Amino acid sequence: MRLRRAVRQCVLVSSHRIEIRGLPSLPEIREGDDLPAIILEACREVSFAPEEGDIFVVTQKIVSKAEGQVVDLRDVTPSSLAAGFARSADKDPRVVEVVLREASRIVKMDQGILITETRHGFVCANSGVDASNVGSRDTVTILPRDPDASARRLREELEAKTGHQLAVILSDTFGRPWREGVTNIAIGVSGMRALVDYRGSVDPQGRSLATTVVAVADELASAAELVMGKLDHTPVAVIRGYPFQPGDDGAKPLLRARERDLFR
Amino acid sequence: MRLRRAVRQCVLVSSHRIEIRGLPSLPEIREGDDLPAIILEACREVSFAPEEGDIFVVTQKIVSKAEGQVVDLRDVTPSSLAAGFARSADKDPRVVEVVLREASRIVKMDQGILITETRHGFVCANSGVDASNVGSRDTVTILPRDPDASARRLREELEAKTGHQLAVILSDTFGRPWREGVTNIAIGVSGMRALVDYRGSVDPQGRSLATTVVAVADELASAAELVMGKLDHTPVAVIRGYPFQPGDDGAKPLLRARERDLFR
Repeated sequence: MRLRRAVRQCVLVSSHRIEIRGLPSLPEIREGDDLPAIILEACREVSFAPEEGDIFVVTQKIVSKAEGQVVDLRDVTPSSLAAGFARSADKDPRVVEVVLREASRIVKMDQGILITETRHGFVCANSGVDASNVGSRDTVTILPRDPDASARRLREELEAKTGHQLAVILSDTFGRPWREGVTNIAIGVSGMRALVDYRGSVDPQGRSLATTVVAVADELASAAELVMGKLDHTPVAVIRGYPFQPGDDGAKPLLRARERDLFR
Repeated sequence: MRLRRAVRQCVLVSSHRIEIRGLPSLPEIREGDDLPAIILEACREVSFAPEEGDIFVVTQKIVSKAEGQVVDLRDVTPSSLAAGFARSADKDPRVVEVVLREASRIVKMDQGILITETRHGFVCANSGVDASNVGSRDTVTILPRDPDASARRLREELEAKTGHQLAVILSDTFGRPWREGVTNIAIGVSGMRALVDYRGSVDPQGRSLATTVVAVADELASAAELVMGKLDHTPVAVIRGYPFQPGDDGAKPLLRARERDLFR
């Protein structure tokens, strides 16, 4: 009887109950810092022991800082394109110049808004260049060179140090058309499939499901943001209880191919 | 000592720890069903007692069913526009006809994809018309007439029955440009502010935050989807520990005004 109840609870926990915990005690990250060690130290400080199947969601900002993906604006000379847009949009022309350098294509450059496609294939505001919380008024962070590789390195080191199979999501907050406000999404993924595909599944009436592919990595990143906040230093969250599908295609499957996209 | 521990746990829960629980045992919902009573019965079945500050995320589908927002396709005569698109896209012309009737504007109608603006102002595929999990092959659900009002009614009845201050989010899964896969978002909100606005806040270097307005209602809906799944009947999730800002502007603040939107 007790065993049966234990089994039932276990099933409940794995499929119908998720816990998200923020790690608030990380120090300011600098180039070359050992991020996996720092994250595990932050776990210890709140008496949190990682378990098999935990998902670590890490904000892009601290990964960029650890990897030295930081630009000193004093070294940047704005082009006349950057200077013109900066003037019309009341922005720092050096920041606009960095945004243009990080772009592979301009999607929209209008009404003070600069939406680009980055060389990774992300479509976002300002190529993911971020001037807040960087540590100096004259520096900005740029996105990691290869966010999936960053996620993979983090995962492998966290797995080696904990002995558990884990997943890692690198996140950033992106805007979207049609809706106000940003949401946190996945820019790098390792250890799990970013999309869950229900195609081929049918409902009880035998009709195929209309909503067939769910971007669970983006949903996990959004869930993590709820404990991260913006003003307190909580750049890492751990999600426990979500039964992810193992995989290592990274965040690439989340990018819609241009020929399948009606909005670029 | 016990009190201090209780207070400390409470602080942890409210700021850096969130729990999400799915309610898997809901029956098939029919028009006129007492949804608040059914939801609380499902809570009791998993020995879950709602608490002050809990957020109930409820999928649009069961709200539409309870409100009778269901269309019998045998009563629908497709227009020639609907019939033509259905032929080119290999869809049921009667469903396309319902989609067009639910639209206030066509955003894109190309490559088998039909993106509309609904009369509520949502931009989404197929006007939110859904043919899966409806109970009959000849019926589809349409979105609630006024999702904020539906959320408010649900919240008020849940609050009256539990004696707690709560929030309610009505959710649906929407696609987005540029990225593959759908995510769960908020179409109706009551009891909380849908956006959290950091404008005016500054980082430790005195720079204003780049990411200033976060669509937390959408992030909460996405978080809830992680315990809902698509194949099992888990149309309600409860999120505990997220310190929402009370408010009652509904989901309207999430809709980007057309003049502020570069993509319609």
